[in-house]
Amino acid sequence: MSNSMGSSALSTPRFCNTGTFMRMPRINEVEDPDFVIFGVPFDTASSYRSGARFGPSAIRNISAMMKPNNVIMGVNILEELKGADYGDVNVTPGYILPTYEAIENELQPIVDAGIIPIGLGGDHSITLALMRAVAKKHGPLAMVHFDSHADINDEVFGQKYNHGTPFRRSLEEGIVDASKSIQVGMRGSLYDPNEHRIAEEELGYKLIPAHKMVDMGFDAVIEEIKARVGNHPVFLTFDIDFVDPAYAPGTGTPEVGGFTSRETLYMLRKLKDLNFVAFDVVEVAPAYDHGEITSYMAANICFEYISMLALKKKEARL
Amino acid sequence: MSNSMGSSALSTPRFCNTGTFMRMPRINEVEDPDFVIFGVPFDTASSYRSGARFGPSAIRNISAMMKPNNVIMGVNILEELKGADYGDVNVTPGYILPTYEAIENELQPIVDAGIIPIGLGGDHSITLALMRAVAKKHGPLAMVHFDSHADINDEVFGQKYNHGTPFRRSLEEGIVDASKSIQVGMRGSLYDPNEHRIAEEELGYKLIPAHKMVDMGFDAVIEEIKARVGNHPVFLTFDIDFVDPAYAPGTGTPEVGGFTSRETLYMLRKLKDLNFVAFDVVEVAPAYDHGEITSYMAANICFEYISMLALKKKEARL
Amino acid sequence: MSNSMGSSALSTPRFCNTGTFMRMPRINEVEDPDFVIFGVPFDTASSYRSGARFGPSAIRNISAMMKPNNVIMGVNILEELKGADYGDVNVTPGYILPTYEAIENELQPIVDAGIIPIGLGGDHSITLALMRAVAKKHGPLAMVHFDSHADINDEVFGQKYNHGTPFRRSLEEGIVDASKSIQVGMRGSLYDPNEHRIAEEELGYKLIPAHKMVDMGFDAVIEEIKARVGNHPVFLTFDIDFVDPAYAPGTGTPEVGGFTSRETLYMLRKLKDLNFVAFDVVEVAPAYDHGEITSYMAANICFEYISMLALKKKEARL
Amino acid sequence: MSNSMGSSALSTPRFCNTGTFMRMPRINEVEDPDFVIFGVPFDTASSYRSGARFGPSAIRNISAMMKPNNVIMGVNILEELKGADYGDVNVTPGYILPTYEAIENELQPIVDAGIIPIGLGGDHSITLALMRAVAKKHGPLAMVHFDSHADINDEVFGQKYNHGTPFRRSLEEGIVDASKSIQVGMRGSLYDPNEHRIAEEELGYKLIPAHKMVDMGFDAVIEEIKARVGNHPVFLTFDIDFVDPAYAPGTGTPEVGGFTSRETLYMLRKLKDLNFVAFDVVEVAPAYDHGEITSYMAANICFEYISMLALKKKEARL
Amino acid sequence: MSNSMGSSALSTPRFCNTGTFMRMPRINEVEDPDFVIFGVPFDTASSYRSGARFGPSAIRNISAMMKPNNVIMGVNILEELKGADYGDVNVTPGYILPTYEAIENELQPIVDAGIIPIGLGGDHSITLALMRAVAKKHGPLAMVHFDSHADINDEVFGQKYNHGTPFRRSLEEGIVDASKSIQVGMRGSLYDPNEHRIAEEELGYKLIPAHKMVDMGFDAVIEEIKARVGNHPVFLTFDIDFVDPAYAPGTGTPEVGGFTSRETLYMLRKLKDLNFVAFDVVEVAPAYDHGEITSYMAANICFEYISMLALKKKEARL
Amino acid sequence: MSNSMGSSALSTPRFCNTGTFMRMPRINEVEDPDFVIFGVPFDTASSYRSGARFGPSAIRNISAMMKPNNVIMGVNILEELKGADYGDVNVTPGYILPTYEAIENELQPIVDAGIIPIGLGGDHSITLALMRAVAKKHGPLAMVHFDSHADINDEVFGQKYNHGTPFRRSLEEGIVDASKSIQVGMRGSLYDPNEHRIAEEELGYKLIPAHKMVDMGFDAVIEEIKARVGNHPVFLTFDIDFVDPAYAPGTGTPEVGGFTSRETLYMLRKLKDLNFVAFDVVEVAPAYDHGEITSYMAANICFEYISMLALKKKEARL
Repeated sequence: MSNSMGSSALSTPRFCNTGTFMRMPRINEVEDPDFVIFGVPFDTASSYRSGARFGPSAIRNISAMMKPNNVIMGVNILEELKGADYGDVNVTPGYILPTYEAIENELQPIVDAGIIPIGLGGDHSITLALMRAVAKKHGPLAMVHFDSHADINDEVFGQKYNHGTPFRRSLEEGIVDASKSIQVGMRGSLYDPNEHRIAEEELGYKLIPAHKMVDMGFDAVIEEIKARVGNHPVFLTFDIDFVDPAYAPGTGTPEVGGFTSRETLYMLRKLKDLNFVAFDVVEVAPAYDHGEITSYMAANICFEYISMLALKKKEARL
Repeated sequence: MSNSMGSSALSTPRFCNTGTFMRMPRINEVEDPDFVIFGVPFDTASSYRSGARFGPSAIRNISAMMKPNNVIMGVNILEELKGADYGDVNVTPGYILPTYEAIENELQPIVDAGIIPIGLGGDHSITLALMRAVAKKHGPLAMVHFDSHADINDEVFGQKYNHGTPFRRSLEEGIVDASKSIQVGMRGSLYDPNEHRIAEEELGYKLIPAHKMVDMGFDAVIEEIKARVGNHPVFLTFDIDFVDPAYAPGTGTPEVGGFTSRETLYMLRKLKDLNFVAFDVVEVAPAYDHGEITSYMAANICFEYISMLALKKKEARL
Repeated sequence: MSNSMGSSALSTPRFCNTGTFMRMPRINEVEDPDFVIFGVPFDTASSYRSGARFGPSAIRNISAMMKPNNVIMGVNILEELKGADYGDVNVTPGYILPTYEAIENELQPIVDAGIIPIGLGGDHSITLALMRAVAKKHGPLAMVHFDSHADINDEVFGQKYNHGTPFRRSLEEGIVDASKSIQVGMRGSLYDPNEHRIAEEELGYKLIPAHKMVDMGFDAVIEEIKARVGNHPVFLTFDIDFVDPAYAPGTGTPEVGGFTSRETLYMLRKLKDLNFVAFDVVEVAPAYDHGEITSYMAANICFEYISMLALKKKEARL
Repeated sequence: MSNSMGSSALSTPRFCNTGTFMRMPRINEVEDPDFVIFGVPFDTASSYRSGARFGPSAIRNISAMMKPNNVIMGVNILEELKGADYGDVNVTPGYILPTYEAIENELQPIVDAGIIPIGLGGDHSITLALMRAVAKKHGPLAMVHFDSHADINDEVFGQKYNHGTPFRRSLEEGIVDASKSIQVGMRGSLYDPNEHRIAEEELGYKLIPAHKMVDMGFDAVIEEIKARVGNHPVFLTFDIDFVDPAYAPGTGTPEVGGFTSRETLYMLRKLKDLNFVAFDVVEVAPAYDHGEITSYMAANICFEYISMLALKKKEARL
Repeated sequence: MSNSMGSSALSTPRFCNTGTFMRMPRINEVEDPDFVIFGVPFDTASSYRSGARFGPSAIRNISAMMKPNNVIMGVNILEELKGADYGDVNVTPGYILPTYEAIENELQPIVDAGIIPIGLGGDHSITLALMRAVAKKHGPLAMVHFDSHADINDEVFGQKYNHGTPFRRSLEEGIVDASKSIQVGMRGSLYDPNEHRIAEEELGYKLIPAHKMVDMGFDAVIEEIKARVGNHPVFLTFDIDFVDPAYAPGTGTPEVGGFTSRETLYMLRKLKDLNFVAFDVVEVAPAYDHGEITSYMAANICFEYISMLALKKKEARL
Repeated sequence: MSNSMGSSALSTPRFCNTGTFMRMPRINEVEDPDFVIFGVPFDTASSYRSGARFGPSAIRNISAMMKPNNVIMGVNILEELKGADYGDVNVTPGYILPTYEAIENELQPIVDAGIIPIGLGGDHSITLALMRAVAKKHGPLAMVHFDSHADINDEVFGQKYNHGTPFRRSLEEGIVDASKSIQVGMRGSLYDPNEHRIAEEELGYKLIPAHKMVDMGFDAVIEEIKARVGNHPVFLTFDIDFVDPAYAPGTGTPEVGGFTSRETLYMLRKLKDLNFVAFDVVEVAPAYDHGEITSYMAANICFEYISMLALKKKEARL
């Protein structure tokens, strides 16, 4: 077998030996990693299109195209950090509560060891369980939430746990600090005309809908995010439907009028100084993708996550 | 609006006014129907690919191509029978028990009114709830089960309710009479080497795997089915993966080495003398289909169901 | 059957009981609707790719994702208006003249009853027949036309009626008032180098090609449109190929260099004060779509149409 | 430019210089060809899915994979025959009568010159015009018709000319001799329960539906065809939906329960002794195809046509 | 991470932790495996469609659906054998000679250790290099070759190494013993009318074309294969285009008129008593596949390979 | 055959008689053309996805939609220029050196005759051979290079010739004058953190990465390009992955964060005063495209090339 871990695609074709994110080593092959990529192939809580259970596999496959240097940030992620691919959490398809338990149980030791977790969804319901594990170590989290939906319903179809409810549950459970948290990108038609007001007035989040982001300009949005979270430990959760369906068709509940890939990456990179303790990217549903463009966008979002971590380490080192 | 109910596609294009099966009237537009088509857009219990929640919609769309005369059987279904499209059961995505309750509650009045139900799945877990309603009226049922899998696991992922367990549950609940029931078409690799033996020896079913069907010849298979069920009230449940993936790619757990569409229809038509009280066709997952061939196969299977009912009525009439 | 009319997807999954636009009631289930959605599944007049006959069905299917509140406009369409789905006009595939007759005959009573019609195409030839019915009530119409093509040829393939000729015919028939009308978004290579000049100088339209729209800025384009039509009764006709193929690949004659979904919706919403008497969205060809992004864009355009009507009613009410 | 006409793909890649059938020379590059391939990219008369206008282009593209030797027949088509690609008839999309006129006008000189025409559809309506030209030279034709539909309606949507009516029209026009003609492969649900009886009793055709073909065995079917047509001049018309949708999904009105590619080719080759004067293969709709399998099947059917002609020439030569 | 190696999908979803064939352990995690699966993601030698470089990845992904028991053979592959996934050979895209060197170098130690190699292609050119390594240990091999093409050209495009030439090269190199070897399934149009005769008379192979296989019956074909190879060490090489494009569309040079999945598996299982020393399955090109049916067929072919090995071990054990 | 050369699609449907770019005449049908379109269907040098060998065919097919007038530039390309379609270079799949030789040999007489060549790729490796032929006539070329990658590696997989190396080779061979050349659009993760610095400092190119282009504004980028190349003979080479994957998914190594079709065409048109001597557009891989949007974008890029040439001629004429 060609040893492709960390090797250059200039010597080993990138389509060889895929199976882990960016063909990184597996968790049992790395000591004391700085971050781990882990999959949560669970789509039971999807309200419209299911299929996000194949998100982790698709993102890993196309992530083989990624290379280690982020030129815009000026950092080589492999030089600064040790990463590992954990594999997938042992979810229970069709059953959200046992799945939550599995996520928490499997993730807690990672978080407790000071390793930054980067989750690949799966539908957005999984983020609640991830947050539980992360908050157990870091206390109530600042949430930076990119999405076209606020996901703050109390119930969907009469149920408390669904991909439309996690960010109400997270407040009830005290694992997110609404006053440090912000939701951006919301758009599309709604059931409740007051949803955005509820997010801010009842729940205490800051919420900037998509059309206001365009009005403000993206630099101003970034300033709002930074001002909101300050130096608090941040969980950045990214629903791929933040991006416009032209750029990310492979998702469960797309919304037109969204952001381009260029705008999205621009905004992410500007967050590099935040105090990130965890990340995820969710809702990639490959059966609705084409040319793997959605999966590759998700892989690039993860790459920006890792680059931000690497840059912090580099800056600390220098 | 063109009134396309019952009208000929020779005067109204078949792609107009779709939305019900074969553009039949809705349930509230028909008095005392003989049969109803109803959808159960539920895929929460899928173990591999999800997506069958869009099965009912896809089957209805392409069913517009069907016309009322079954030439091989010599019957016009619209002349013999009144049919209606019930719409979809109000399932709860992500939650199987409330969904089962909804299926039973919505289906029971139909069954009790002596209307033959024809269900469109949805994953195969839904059949258990359908059987409950049907058995409440008819007593323990003879099951004729076309599938590539026996679906008789005790648990899948530690759970009792899943699309791999319904035909063990149905025996435990006493709603199927194993001694009158038969499973045909099983094939593919298995976890339990004794699964076929368990079906027969522990559970009491008759099970004919695919390779034995080919050896016996299809006429002999038909004779076995007829001998098994006799004149008992029959629930015919058809998993579309009985058909080979070349003919039905749009499904959750395809198995190669299956049956052609010609073989499948041949066998179905030969069952015309059974005492059917309910039917379903399940596991159509349109996101994996192409050219709508899987949905159209499922629509044709329903057409054969209805034709068999119509022929009985015609023969009784003559 | 779950009664999903007007109900929330929070209690009924959105993929249940599709078949009408936004799962609205059918025309025979509503008294005195304010607007109706109707399909014209006709693609006989397409010059390049056919397939728009399946546009109405595809738009209705994905429109299940839409919800009633338009947050940007601050209006709930179901609270302000009664809508109905008419179903499809009884077109004659392959024959444009009988189809025109059917459109006019079926649409006239709706228009005469003061109901606002919202048409789903179908190729752009259908708009001529829609305009005939609408103009019979309102007199010569102001046309606001979003498209990448001007559709003002005299003949195509030696024929007067084709999807490339309706807006020359409409002037000849006196059903559109060119001096109140405007065409925007034109781009791409042309047969006649003078086409844009002909539109303005010979026919009397105002025409703003795509590249000038970008130069002017979209707010200035809006001002031009408003200035042009004033308070005249407006027929807004929208060819989905106005939108760039990245956002709307599923169409017959795509043109690169077009508009994003965000830009498109921005412009539409700014037209809210016009005196709309009819709308359509045409040229959705699902066989060339993927992930239903084109159909969903069309559904969203209709949603903006309805929202503008609702807002007017709301403002009049307040 | 590599000269790929007649050259071996062993020296020139087969994906170079496509654009004609099997990369044959164009009509203006060959003197006195024995046969011509011509396209009729017309789909206006389709009753369900449109899109067959792109059939000729798709068949030509994939026909690059064909090579000149038919091993089963023992003949090299290029050695025995001179063929040419005529290009496409100048159809009028949306208008069937001018298209019929164009087909007849363009085809007549070819037929009159004693060249065998091989048409690529387009929908099945085009065959009527082809037959007119061919019958003008050869008198009333024996028709051998492979299809899943008999296409003998009197009217469809109130119109005489449609892809569902040509083989009633052809009798009315006296260009087909029903007593020498045979239709095979019919199946699927029907509007008129007597359609098959009408074909035989009213119109005078011989019609063997698909299920009877299976019962008889294919050799017996061949014998019936041969007995029927004798040595009369034969027009062989082949609707690709004769083949099962698993093998030919890319078509307008597929019917399940059809024939495999192996069965189809077997039957065709057995017809080698008939007195063929024209051929066509119709109803390939590439937008519904995948992996080009339908187009390639159509290309192979044409290859068998040409091989039968070549074999006759070879046998005459020897 | 859930430990899914060897675990049941009844406890761990099959879409978790993919990346190796059937989620087997990697080569460095198993001592003394009986067989290894290895990928050769190389498609440089393809003459028509490229894309087989993604074959190994696609086959591994869908192989997650396979389970360990082969009921027809009565064997559990995991109980009888230790298998490992080697990963991919370090091919050089665009350059066949360095790739051949890599294949040989990487494969030789495996073969020399008495491990049975099972290769996943990649185009058929790779088999030559595999055979070199295998023959170095076992001497000139008996080849059992399933394919629609004989691959015995001397040159293609003026080059000696191409996916159309390996089984002429293998004879020249003395690594295959033609007198013990057999090619089955050949069909389709040819450049050289004598190709089949050349295979037999010049090269010394036995070759049974597809149409003769159907005439003889598959049991007779099996007898011919067995008689041919006797107890000689066998390399079974399987080009997925042996299977009909309806069942295996995702390949580079499909040929219609092929075999069904049922026929294919039937034939393979009958070879269980041969003395296999190596296997491969090649030419899976996922970009042309749909619903992963081609990849899954290839995975099932490998499963039959492994089952045959397991059965031998079991029979030896008992 | 309808003579569609230069004829209007208003009289001949655009889907008839495709096979050449914009249905132009073939090379042997035009005397003294001003420019030729030629295909180089070669993808052997692709490092990730292969498939660009079908690029020329796909671009030609969809180019049928193009018409002769460029309204923005105010020029009719057919009135100013004579163009021809050369067909495809006789490449050798799998072998880059003989392919280079074929390209040079076939292209040299065209270039020497003063005809402007416009190449359709094929992967980017082909540009090196094109440049050789062009430079033989014009001397070291100014290169204007649109791409998301700089393609200046010394070796890839240990090989000198690959689609990642041409613009280092071109300098070594002295056929490009780095001091007159510029690369724009580079983005995405990299193996060598110094790649952009190497391009400028070691190789002497000017390189503007994508994020700097956005910062500078596109007009400033244009000014940089113009200043760089002056009046030197320019080879414009365009890798379709310059465009964002939302707009051009059908390519081998897509990079997110790219340019829209509108931005791209805007920039190209601004280059109209350069002294172009050759063009190409490469890396269109149709198997990954959908709705032909990538191919159509490539066809439009060629149309802008031709328009720039036509405008020069027109301006010289006036």
